[in-house]
Amino acid sequence: MVFPVISSETKFDVVVIGAGVVGMASAYHIKQGSPEKSVLVLERYADVGQGNTARSNAMFRNTFTSPDNQVLAGSSIDFYLHVQKELGIDIGIDLIGYLWMMSPRQRAACERHIRTMEENGVEVKLYERAELEKMIPGLVTKFNGSEEAGLMKLEDIDAALLGRKCGRLAPDNLTAFYRDQFLKLGGKISFNTEAERLVFEAVGGLGIQGEPFAWQDSRVTGVKTGDGKVVRADKVVVAAGAWNSELLDGSGIDGHVKNKKRQTFGLPVKGNAALEKLLHAKGFNQSGTLPFTILPKSGLYLKPVKEEGEFLVACEDEINRPFITVPEHDLEKYQAELDYYEMSIYHVLREYLPPFEGVRPTRMWAGLYSYNTIDNMPYVFEEDGVVAVGGDSGSGVMKGDAMGRVVEAVCRSGSGATAELYGGRQYKASRLGFKSRSLEREEWVI
Amino acid sequence: MVFPVISSETKFDVVVIGAGVVGMASAYHIKQGSPEKSVLVLERYADVGQGNTARSNAMFRNTFTSPDNQVLAGSSIDFYLHVQKELGIDIGIDLIGYLWMMSPRQRAACERHIRTMEENGVEVKLYERAELEKMIPGLVTKFNGSEEAGLMKLEDIDAALLGRKCGRLAPDNLTAFYRDQFLKLGGKISFNTEAERLVFEAVGGLGIQGEPFAWQDSRVTGVKTGDGKVVRADKVVVAAGAWNSELLDGSGIDGHVKNKKRQTFGLPVKGNAALEKLLHAKGFNQSGTLPFTILPKSGLYLKPVKEEGEFLVACEDEINRPFITVPEHDLEKYQAELDYYEMSIYHVLREYLPPFEGVRPTRMWAGLYSYNTIDNMPYVFEEDGVVAVGGDSGSGVMKGDAMGRVVEAVCRSGSGATAELYGGRQYKASRLGFKSRSLEREEWVI
Repeated sequence: MVFPVISSETKFDVVVIGAGVVGMASAYHIKQGSPEKSVLVLERYADVGQGNTARSNAMFRNTFTSPDNQVLAGSSIDFYLHVQKELGIDIGIDLIGYLWMMSPRQRAACERHIRTMEENGVEVKLYERAELEKMIPGLVTKFNGSEEAGLMKLEDIDAALLGRKCGRLAPDNLTAFYRDQFLKLGGKISFNTEAERLVFEAVGGLGIQGEPFAWQDSRVTGVKTGDGKVVRADKVVVAAGAWNSELLDGSGIDGHVKNKKRQTFGLPVKGNAALEKLLHAKGFNQSGTLPFTILPKSGLYLKPVKEEGEFLVACEDEINRPFITVPEHDLEKYQAELDYYEMSIYHVLREYLPPFEGVRPTRMWAGLYSYNTIDNMPYVFEEDGVVAVGGDSGSGVMKGDAMGRVVEAVCRSGSGATAELYGGRQYKASRLGFKSRSLEREEWVI
Repeated sequence: MVFPVISSETKFDVVVIGAGVVGMASAYHIKQGSPEKSVLVLERYADVGQGNTARSNAMFRNTFTSPDNQVLAGSSIDFYLHVQKELGIDIGIDLIGYLWMMSPRQRAACERHIRTMEENGVEVKLYERAELEKMIPGLVTKFNGSEEAGLMKLEDIDAALLGRKCGRLAPDNLTAFYRDQFLKLGGKISFNTEAERLVFEAVGGLGIQGEPFAWQDSRVTGVKTGDGKVVRADKVVVAAGAWNSELLDGSGIDGHVKNKKRQTFGLPVKGNAALEKLLHAKGFNQSGTLPFTILPKSGLYLKPVKEEGEFLVACEDEINRPFITVPEHDLEKYQAELDYYEMSIYHVLREYLPPFEGVRPTRMWAGLYSYNTIDNMPYVFEEDGVVAVGGDSGSGVMKGDAMGRVVEAVCRSGSGATAELYGGRQYKASRLGFKSRSLEREEWVI
């Protein structure tokens, strides 16, 4: 790996801030599309994918209500499958599927979304209650007036929708893939390097102290790093995820990102026969495991990890959970709360899945879930020399490749660009901008 | 004035956070519409209108490109005129007009907006260059290759649009009007009282430590004040302007507000004959003064204040000026910068208006300009027991009355409510919400 020394005269064609999956996919596609361009990635941590990419549950799905999300995630998944199967690089893909459990009320509300998915070629299959009961050992679908379920207003399960081209991957392997390809093409990465702020300069400046002035045209011409150096660039790609607003807002450009802490709890399966059976629920996928499963209350979900003998669980965590506008640089400051598992997750979990009775987490961690609160949809926009990408609402991993290709197109041809996504589909970058944004709000958010 | 003691048992029907113009208009209309309701206003400062309301330039206009803004500002202006003329309460209204100077390029771009305004009954008049030269002593409309103008890329002035039902008012008098009416109706205000955070509680809570849990329905039931007390309320109206996001984001509700520092500089006229003539430019209004005038570069504007013998000047101040997401509570921490006047404002000002040659400010101040960056339009939304109002992008004063009426309607009938604006016009509150927002982005922002 190359650690270029940044001197105050260093100048690159493109500087990318952030080596998470979105930043690395962007850097790779920029270098791939224009090998003659000099591209530098600045990363706060010691390697790629060490921020919230590493803390995500690293699931992917194409079962979105937004047609744009279907396309962005769908083509990214196709690329990841290509990397794993055709390039033979193991990025840990396992197509375990997404299983959305639905109450009668939710089923009615989702009917039109399911129809749209089917029309758009998203592979889904509906399971009725009776089938679910047979296939998922221990699942409770009817509460028959149980007092605790009533107190928690838990709804019966009426059906479940399985998304087939959905599953999990290894985010460290995926970012390492992009890193290695990028370095092979001659790209540079500077790790342990904080991007402190964007540098604004007057276009055709007069060399007067205090520029740029209000009457001057000005643009971002570089990045000031934590050690006081300035890296200059023709384009600065801001792909700092949760920290996008800190960098962009601080320079007077709206970063359109807010964050909430999200927690994941690891529940051990070993020695618990009922949980072992649940983990190895058959019939849904070729892995012979329960799919990633979403329960019909507070977005509570389970990710089975067969090789670890573990379920990872988490939930939407919306209520009274503060939006974080200026997130810590040290993610270790966000710790998971055992109370949260015990009081907000556990009771719901064991009502729907009694095999979890008495099970406590053996590990847990927290990260930041990064929102674009306008429509829960990602963005790519160009403004004043910056190309900003983010707001993916927890789907950075699953849309990363497509976002990187859109960033590449915008860096090359401006915000009017058309990107070619993996598989050949043409996608207009302006759809993801804010000037003429034309996106439907995503309705299926967890 | 009444300073009720807030005990830990205090409960009101409505608590309004913030006694700026929007908060006080809301409190007044709520009490006016439902005199039986107990209404308390919580205010950080020692009286009404002491925050950014006091720091605004307190101008009003109905010359917006957004039809909604035309209606919201138009009906508020009508109400203010009613207060001044029919109720005989002096709120300092002076219909000096808004004069938008336009370069040939800007004129072409604005044509369709002007047509829409005329169709919607907004009273405007277009002045051609020759008329402006006659009416405005000292105005330069053509630079004829001047080097300094060229360096600054100043454009010639081709025409100007005068908005007639536009002008200035005294924001302290306006907020005092709402305060006095509100108190007369039995409303309560607690000054010097910080609203520290919103109190969330489970609906039908079980009395367990740590509620609300993720599986519980919960809502805001009150406000925790800086001295540790809790004021309970059926509805909490958040009208804290620049601090809306701090309060709402902190409770997990998106506050949709960002801020930038804005500065105003007071330029003395006395003893400068050319400036005296400019201040008293005749023919535009009954006050015999120059209208509020916007120059065609960086939104630089002049507010003539005849009785003070002063021009107040300011500009858009966008470039590289940070968005402030967590603003200071003590606004004195935001100071105007003399350099900003000298380098960013002065040179443009004296090119268009040479009488300002050599003039330096005798006073200056700063405040926060509060944005809803989605569409530069205000919002009113109801969520989890909160009614939030804000995002008025510097137009809190001019749309305050209408916003207060929309808040009242939402407090009474929910987000599906229809408000009756002053003059009888019906206005659907949901237009200003985020769930089914149907607003055009405002294009004329200064």
